[in-house]
Amino acid sequence: MKIVIVGGVGGGMSAAARARRLSEDAEIVVLDRGEHVSFAGCGLPYHVGGEVPEGDLLVQTPASLRASLALDVRTRHDVVALDTAHRSLTVRTPDGEEQIGYDALLLSPGARAVRPPVPGLDSPRVRTLRTIADARELRAAVQGGARHAVVLGAGFIGLEAAEALASQGVDVTLVETAGHPLPPLEPELGTLVADELRHLGVTVRTGVAATAVTHGTDHDVVDLGDGTRVDADVVVLAVGVRPDTDVFADAGIVVEGGAIVVDERGRTSADGIWAVGDATVSTDAVTGSRRPVALAGPAARAGRIVADQILRPATARPLPTALGTAVVRVGELTAATTGAHRTALTRAGIDHRTVHLHAAHHVGWFPGAEQIHLVVHVGTGDGRVLGAQAVGRSGVDKRIDVLATAIRAGLTADDLVDLDLAYAPPFGAAKDPVNLAGMVAANTLDGTLRLWYAEDVDQVLGTALVLDVRSADEVAQRHLPDSLHVPHTELRERLDEVVAAAAGRPVRVLCGSGVRSHLAHRILDQAGLDSASLSGGMLTLQAVLATRGSDLGGLLVAAEPALVH
Amino acid sequence: MKIVIVGGVGGGMSAAARARRLSEDAEIVVLDRGEHVSFAGCGLPYHVGGEVPEGDLLVQTPASLRASLALDVRTRHDVVALDTAHRSLTVRTPDGEEQIGYDALLLSPGARAVRPPVPGLDSPRVRTLRTIADARELRAAVQGGARHAVVLGAGFIGLEAAEALASQGVDVTLVETAGHPLPPLEPELGTLVADELRHLGVTVRTGVAATAVTHGTDHDVVDLGDGTRVDADVVVLAVGVRPDTDVFADAGIVVEGGAIVVDERGRTSADGIWAVGDATVSTDAVTGSRRPVALAGPAARAGRIVADQILRPATARPLPTALGTAVVRVGELTAATTGAHRTALTRAGIDHRTVHLHAAHHVGWFPGAEQIHLVVHVGTGDGRVLGAQAVGRSGVDKRIDVLATAIRAGLTADDLVDLDLAYAPPFGAAKDPVNLAGMVAANTLDGTLRLWYAEDVDQVLGTALVLDVRSADEVAQRHLPDSLHVPHTELRERLDEVVAAAAGRPVRVLCGSGVRSHLAHRILDQAGLDSASLSGGMLTLQAVLATRGSDLGGLLVAAEPALVH
Repeated sequence: MKIVIVGGVGGGMSAAARARRLSEDAEIVVLDRGEHVSFAGCGLPYHVGGEVPEGDLLVQTPASLRASLALDVRTRHDVVALDTAHRSLTVRTPDGEEQIGYDALLLSPGARAVRPPVPGLDSPRVRTLRTIADARELRAAVQGGARHAVVLGAGFIGLEAAEALASQGVDVTLVETAGHPLPPLEPELGTLVADELRHLGVTVRTGVAATAVTHGTDHDVVDLGDGTRVDADVVVLAVGVRPDTDVFADAGIVVEGGAIVVDERGRTSADGIWAVGDATVSTDAVTGSRRPVALAGPAARAGRIVADQILRPATARPLPTALGTAVVRVGELTAATTGAHRTALTRAGIDHRTVHLHAAHHVGWFPGAEQIHLVVHVGTGDGRVLGAQAVGRSGVDKRIDVLATAIRAGLTADDLVDLDLAYAPPFGAAKDPVNLAGMVAANTLDGTLRLWYAEDVDQVLGTALVLDVRSADEVAQRHLPDSLHVPHTELRERLDEVVAAAAGRPVRVLCGSGVRSHLAHRILDQAGLDSASLSGGMLTLQAVLATRGSDLGGLLVAAEPALVH
Repeated sequence: MKIVIVGGVGGGMSAAARARRLSEDAEIVVLDRGEHVSFAGCGLPYHVGGEVPEGDLLVQTPASLRASLALDVRTRHDVVALDTAHRSLTVRTPDGEEQIGYDALLLSPGARAVRPPVPGLDSPRVRTLRTIADARELRAAVQGGARHAVVLGAGFIGLEAAEALASQGVDVTLVETAGHPLPPLEPELGTLVADELRHLGVTVRTGVAATAVTHGTDHDVVDLGDGTRVDADVVVLAVGVRPDTDVFADAGIVVEGGAIVVDERGRTSADGIWAVGDATVSTDAVTGSRRPVALAGPAARAGRIVADQILRPATARPLPTALGTAVVRVGELTAATTGAHRTALTRAGIDHRTVHLHAAHHVGWFPGAEQIHLVVHVGTGDGRVLGAQAVGRSGVDKRIDVLATAIRAGLTADDLVDLDLAYAPPFGAAKDPVNLAGMVAANTLDGTLRLWYAEDVDQVLGTALVLDVRSADEVAQRHLPDSLHVPHTELRERLDEVVAAAAGRPVRVLCGSGVRSHLAHRILDQAGLDSASLSGGMLTLQAVLATRGSDLGGLLVAAEPALVH
C-alpha cells in the first residue's frame, strides 16, 4: 500500500511514524511545502526570545526519518492539485511539477495565519510566526536592533511572541480586539494575565484593533481603531489561523468554514482520503459545537489514530472529541484552560454554575505557597464538570490537567471531592484546590451555598445590603460603598445589626476569596435571611471591575478611617 | 444535637467544621488528648529540617475555632472509656475525670507509631515524629549538637525525617527491612530514591532491621541484623503506625486488625457512632483489599462526608474507596504512587501488564527537561489503569494526579491516549508522558508491542539472543554479555545478521529507554521473528540490577573496544 501524507509536521508526521510501526510493507511518502519537517512549531517564539537555539527546533530531518522509520520525506513539495477520481496529486517541486499517486491519502496541511483586511499588512516589517524561517527572521530583526514591536493578537502565540520580544529589550505593544488578553480565558482571569504582561514591560492595548499599517523608511506606524498610532520596527501578525485547505476544497473535498469535514474515523468526503489536525473540523466534547482546533497535542494523537484507521480499520478507535486544553507561560504566570468557557456554555444553552477559588498551590504554611486563581463550570442538572480555567505562578498546569481528565471521564463536582490526589507539603494540600473546587461546586448545586457574582455588582449595590466579613485591616484597603462591615468571627453575636441594616433587603456577603463569606452565608441562611456569598470574593471582584476600566469603575473605594474603626 | 468528636486533627476537625456549616444549632465538642488541635502533622519533619517554623504548624487554635466556627475544642482531654449503651465518654482532663454524653459520636483517634519488640527502644534518645512536641524535641536535639542519627523505617515519614536531619549536617543512617526505601514503590523506582538519599549524604541500609538499641552515656548504639552497629545521638522510630483504638475496641466497637470497621456511611458497629481517618478500615479501590490508610487527604475529605452522614443522611454520599495516592520530596526528586503496586495486584490475583517509561517532563528541546521514570499497571482484560508510580525531578506529582484521576474514573489505557492535557513547551509535550504510557500500554494489550522485563534478564540471557539497538557510544558505556549490537537505524539492512545470530532462539531487544527497541521489535515481528522489547530499556534494567547488589550482579559489563568499533 502506498500512503501519501501531505504535511510533515504534527499530525502528519505522527501518522507516518505510526503507519511504519504498523506496516513494514507500506510505502510511506511525506510531502511538505516547507524546507523542514517535524520541526518544533511550538518552539518558534522561544527561539525569538533566545531560549531555544534554532538547531534544537529541528526534531527530525528527512535523513533521520529515513534511517529510523524508512519514510520517504520530500520537502519543498507543494501540493497544488488533487484528482480524487484518479487518486493523484499534482506537486510543485524545485525540479518542476510531478504527479504522485496514492492508495491512501492523509491530509495534514495545517493552518496559515489569518491576514485581516488591514491596509499595509503587506509591509516587509509585518511577519507571522509559523515557520522556522519566520522565527529566524524575527530573531535577526531583534538582534539587528529592532526597538519597537507591535504584536497584533493576544492569543497563545501572540502572548509568547510579546514576551519573547520584551525579554530581548524590545518595546512591545500588544493589540487585542477582545477585552482582555487570551480571549479563551474568562475575563476575570484575563485581567491577571494583562497585569503580568505590563509587569514584563509590554504595553497592553485591549478592545481595539489595528486599522492600518503605514510603511516608513526607518519604521512602520500602526494605526489603532481609537486613533492612536504606534511605531513599529517589526509587526507580528498573530490574530489567528485558518485551515490551509483551498487545494483540497477545489478538488471537491467537503469543507465547513474552510476546515475539512471528517467522520469519527478521520475520513473525508472522498474515498481513500483521511485528514487530521488544524485543518479539520473537531467536535467540542462539552458543547458539541464544531470547529477546527489548532493544537499540537490533539493533532499528534489524531495522526496516530488515523494511521490505525488506514492500516487496521477493524480494530482502530474513533477520534476523540476536543476539550481544547491549552496552557501558556506569561512571565512568572501560567494560564491554562480546558473544556468550555462561560460564553461557549451560554451560547450552547447549557445550564451551569460557576465557582471561583483562590487556593494555595500547596499548604499555605509550607514556604513558597502561591495562589491558584481557578474558575470551574459545572452542569446545573447533573453536576458534570464542563470547563475550567486557572492562572497562577505554580501548580496551574497540574490542576488543569486533572480537570481535563475529569471532564474527559464525565466526572461530577462530587467526584472531584473524592479525587485522591498526591499530598505532601511541597505539592498540595489534604484538600487540593481541585477537591475544594468540587466542594464549593457541590455546595452550590445542592443549595448549601448560594453564590452571587461579581458581574452583578451594580445590581447588588442597588438592591441589597453588602455585608463585608473581612478583617478591619482588609476593609481599610478597599471596600464597596455602603457596605456593612462585620468580621465573620463576630457575626453570630452581631446578627441583629445585620438584620437592621438589611431592612428587608437581601444580604450579599463578601470576603477576600469566598471562604469566610461562605461561613457567614451559612450563619445568615440558617438565621432565615436571604443571603448569598460572593464567588471568589474581593479578588475576583477586583479582577472583574478591572475589565471595566483602569479606575475599577469607581465602585471600589478606599475606606475612610471612621468607617473602619 | 450534641456531636462529640474524638481527635482534633485531620478527619475530626474537618468533620467539625463541616458540621458547623451544616448546622448552627448543633453543639459540637472536639476532644483531643494533645496540647494542640488542627496542627499540620505533615509538616513535622520540615520543622526538624528548619523549613517550617513551629508557629506555622499551628493552623488553628481552640480560640480561633471558637470564633469562626463556634466549636467547643478541649485539648488535653484523653478519652479513657466509652459506654455505648449510655452514649457517654469517660475523659481524663487536667482537672480530673469527667463524663461527656453525646447524641452522635465521631471517632477520629488516628494512629500511633508502631513500636517493634526491639530491646532498648525505651531509650530517651529514641523518638517518634507524631506530635509538635516530638518535632520540637528532635529539632532541639539537632540544634543541641546531635551528630549521628539513625532513622528506623524508610517510609514517607522516615524519608522526610532522614532528609531533614541530613540537611542540618547530621550524619544519618536510614534503616529499612524492605529491599529499597519507600516500600510502596516498585523496586526499580525505589533504587532511584536510594541513590538520591546517598547523594544527600544519608547512609542507606536496606534489607536489614534493628535488633537492639544499647543505651550509652554519650550516645546510643543501634545493632542491625547483619551484625553491624551504628552510633546514634538520636534514633527516629518510623517503622509504621497502627490505629489508636484500644479504648473503643474495649467498648465493643468492632475492629479488624486494630482498625475500626465502618460501613460506606462511616458508621461503626455501635449506634450513633461514626469513625474516620487513620484508625478505620478502608477498601482499596483497585484490589478490594481492606486496610487502614494513614493519609491526610482521605481523612480530611472523609470527615466532611461523615458530617453529612450525621446531619443530613438522606442526601449524604458514601465514603469513596481508597487509592492510596501519596507523594514525597527526597532531595531534588519527587516520588509518588497511586493505586495498586505489582505486589498488591499479584496478591489479589489481578491479571495485569506493566509498562515502564522514561519520558521527559516537557519537550526535550525546551531548556530544563527532566526525565520522569514512570511505571503503570493496566488490567490485561479490560485495559483499566490499576496503578502508577513515578520518580523524577519535575512534573511527577502532576502525572500521578492525572493517573489517580484516571483510576478513580475507571479509565483504560486507550483513554489515557486520548487525554487532552495542557501542552506548551515549558509544561509538557504534544504526547504527554501520560499519553505515552497509554500508547505503550495499549500496544502491549493488543499485541502490537510485546515486552520483556528486566526481572527476567537471567532467563533471557540463557535462552535468547539479546539484541542491543542502541548507538555504539551507548553500548560502549555498558551492555549485557553476549548481546548483538545493531543500531536500530541499521536493522532493516542487517536483518540477516540477527537471524543468523539468533540461530532459532527468540530475540530480546533492548535500547536505552524502550523507544528504539519498540521500533526494532516491530521490524523483527513483521519479519516473523519471536521478538520482544525490554520494558523501560537499559535505565530500568540497571535499576532492577541495582536491587541485586552494588556490582549490578555482574550482568552489566563495560564494553571491550573491539566489540564497539
